[in-house]
Amino acid sequence: MGNEMNQEKNLEKNLETKRKVWKLALLGFGNAGQAFAKMLLDHEEEIASSYGAKMVVTAIATGSRGNLVCGSGSGLADGAEDAVEAADEAGIDLRRALADVESPAGKFTDATALTSMTTMEIVEQADYDILVEMTPLNIKTGQPAIDHIRGALRRGKHAITANKGPIAWSYRSLRDMAKEAGVRFYYETTVMDGTPVFNLAEHTLRLARVTEVSGILNSTTNFILEELAAGAEYEDIMRRGREMGFIEADPAMDIEGYDAAAKITALLNVLMDAGMTPDQVDRKGIEDISTVDIQEATSRGKVIKLLCRGWRDADGTVHASVKPTEVDRSDMLASIDSTTSIVSITTDLMKKLSVVEHQPEIEQTAYGIFGDVLRVICE
Amino acid sequence: MGNEMNQEKNLEKNLETKRKVWKLALLGFGNAGQAFAKMLLDHEEEIASSYGAKMVVTAIATGSRGNLVCGSGSGLADGAEDAVEAADEAGIDLRRALADVESPAGKFTDATALTSMTTMEIVEQADYDILVEMTPLNIKTGQPAIDHIRGALRRGKHAITANKGPIAWSYRSLRDMAKEAGVRFYYETTVMDGTPVFNLAEHTLRLARVTEVSGILNSTTNFILEELAAGAEYEDIMRRGREMGFIEADPAMDIEGYDAAAKITALLNVLMDAGMTPDQVDRKGIEDISTVDIQEATSRGKVIKLLCRGWRDADGTVHASVKPTEVDRSDMLASIDSTTSIVSITTDLMKKLSVVEHQPEIEQTAYGIFGDVLRVICE
Repeated sequence: MGNEMNQEKNLEKNLETKRKVWKLALLGFGNAGQAFAKMLLDHEEEIASSYGAKMVVTAIATGSRGNLVCGSGSGLADGAEDAVEAADEAGIDLRRALADVESPAGKFTDATALTSMTTMEIVEQADYDILVEMTPLNIKTGQPAIDHIRGALRRGKHAITANKGPIAWSYRSLRDMAKEAGVRFYYETTVMDGTPVFNLAEHTLRLARVTEVSGILNSTTNFILEELAAGAEYEDIMRRGREMGFIEADPAMDIEGYDAAAKITALLNVLMDAGMTPDQVDRKGIEDISTVDIQEATSRGKVIKLLCRGWRDADGTVHASVKPTEVDRSDMLASIDSTTSIVSITTDLMKKLSVVEHQPEIEQTAYGIFGDVLRVICE
Repeated sequence: MGNEMNQEKNLEKNLETKRKVWKLALLGFGNAGQAFAKMLLDHEEEIASSYGAKMVVTAIATGSRGNLVCGSGSGLADGAEDAVEAADEAGIDLRRALADVESPAGKFTDATALTSMTTMEIVEQADYDILVEMTPLNIKTGQPAIDHIRGALRRGKHAITANKGPIAWSYRSLRDMAKEAGVRFYYETTVMDGTPVFNLAEHTLRLARVTEVSGILNSTTNFILEELAAGAEYEDIMRRGREMGFIEADPAMDIEGYDAAAKITALLNVLMDAGMTPDQVDRKGIEDISTVDIQEATSRGKVIKLLCRGWRDADGTVHASVKPTEVDRSDMLASIDSTTSIVSITTDLMKKLSVVEHQPEIEQTAYGIFGDVLRVICE
């Protein structure tokens, strides 16, 4: 029996050593980060069998739950280098981290990994292969996410962002930094979660030139406009949206069109190399749309949607707008309801294509990050 | 001057020799084949600069215009081997072939390439790297397209089909043959032209399992149902559809749902490894839909669409149906008008995504083939 067990252990160890280990540093561990961590755990075996890889999380930085860096915690004696190495290969105990954030205190408790390192120190010093940037967004600057990604690329690490700020504010410079460093920089989840939008254009529309991009990209305003049209009161709509989890405590960024402007900018920067920033978008939110406006539109067979659009003019400059727009009730755009979203891409060779994401939940955001990580390890 | 010209010629020759030459054999040279040939010519420089490649067509097989095989024509003296080699690298004069089919006689005239070889002899004997199968479809058998593709794969050649028959009737065996031969077998254009459907799932939905596929996939029936709902007479609709070029002389294959059944089968074979054939689809066309049915549906706020659907049951078997189905006027499916089409893919990790192709023309079919060829040369 003892021998058999040893043999099994050896076999396991052999299988283990054949797998390439990828170390992930997670910046942010909110709803999306937790859903991503669960997806990693749920797919451990498939990642091994499909890609011969093993993913371990070696660092987690959060705003209020504490920071974890694998093997750097106070639980280890000074100079115990072997232990630190071993800890790195196993990674942080992700199940424990998930249990911690769901506990009443909501704080990390793993003394072997708890660290006083700041987020930026983690970016610059922790041991990882792929940085996953999921910190809260400052939509008006893209920071501190941009600095986090720069820090990772500077060290020759791959970077993935779920945060649209860096793509809206600094896409070209980050893309070029990644290229020079010979590493990957992916961002699929920044617009329409894991719905293939950036990947679609890159992988499936070879030699086709994007001439126009449009869509309905902000769920909050789409939900509010739809509920107003159905006769609901503004305050009731906001309360229900908050309960359903997709209206923020302060919804101004959505309602005034800043979120939509950042998303169309991100799309145009990647798909049309626009080199734009969100403040260049001709932006108008839904704050001035009244119930009367909506009723009048309805009486004319129209629906008001917050439409995003970007196009190239004759001299090559890319322009963008975010505006409440009337569309025919029979138009596909009118059927984009509640948290569903759509992006339409027009190219010289394939005319207009649209991609629709139907009523996503947090798992679809997590999948966008997961898909980007899989792309790093298998391309 | 002479020296300069020589230097230029040498430079050109150097650039030329650096490019990898890919030889294409085109089976079928109808509207799609001609549009594809024009796309090749229009993108010669971009193919060179982006992929360091040069594409030449070394054979064209047609039903009624004659067959061309590069360098095999009667115009060459017997035993002129050097000339044959040179001809192969330059390929058939594609501009002349295009002019020929647009001429009143509509027959190929290039004596250096005209051949008495049959289509199957071309498949089995001509010099090519990639077979492009675009022959007219026998939707009830998938032949002779399946034999053409088998012939190419048997010789270790890459194969691309614009013909849905092979994917609907023989996908697994062709896929396995290609895999064993270590060559590529692509078919993006068989459903929704160059719209990324197969590529989308393969390139952008890693580790996601497809659980359901649905859509509106047949333009002819979609157009007829829409026109009937608008009050048009059946005979007028058919005449206009024929004038617009998307209703066949004998529209039975569309109207009775055979085309839609072949398309949903192709989708399910690739996306869900269904191993099905079109005769296993629970199929009902629009032949029994009357104006009265449509009016009644309209009065209830509904629209009738020919809906395709495939799903996996609890024991793992994939089922499929094609049926006239009432959908709400506010449903996205109701907005799919005239020749627009939609496919929705539901996966465990990304829930439901839809892809829409808006009113395609023949160039979009050609782009599907073009994209597949680019995929062969650059992956």
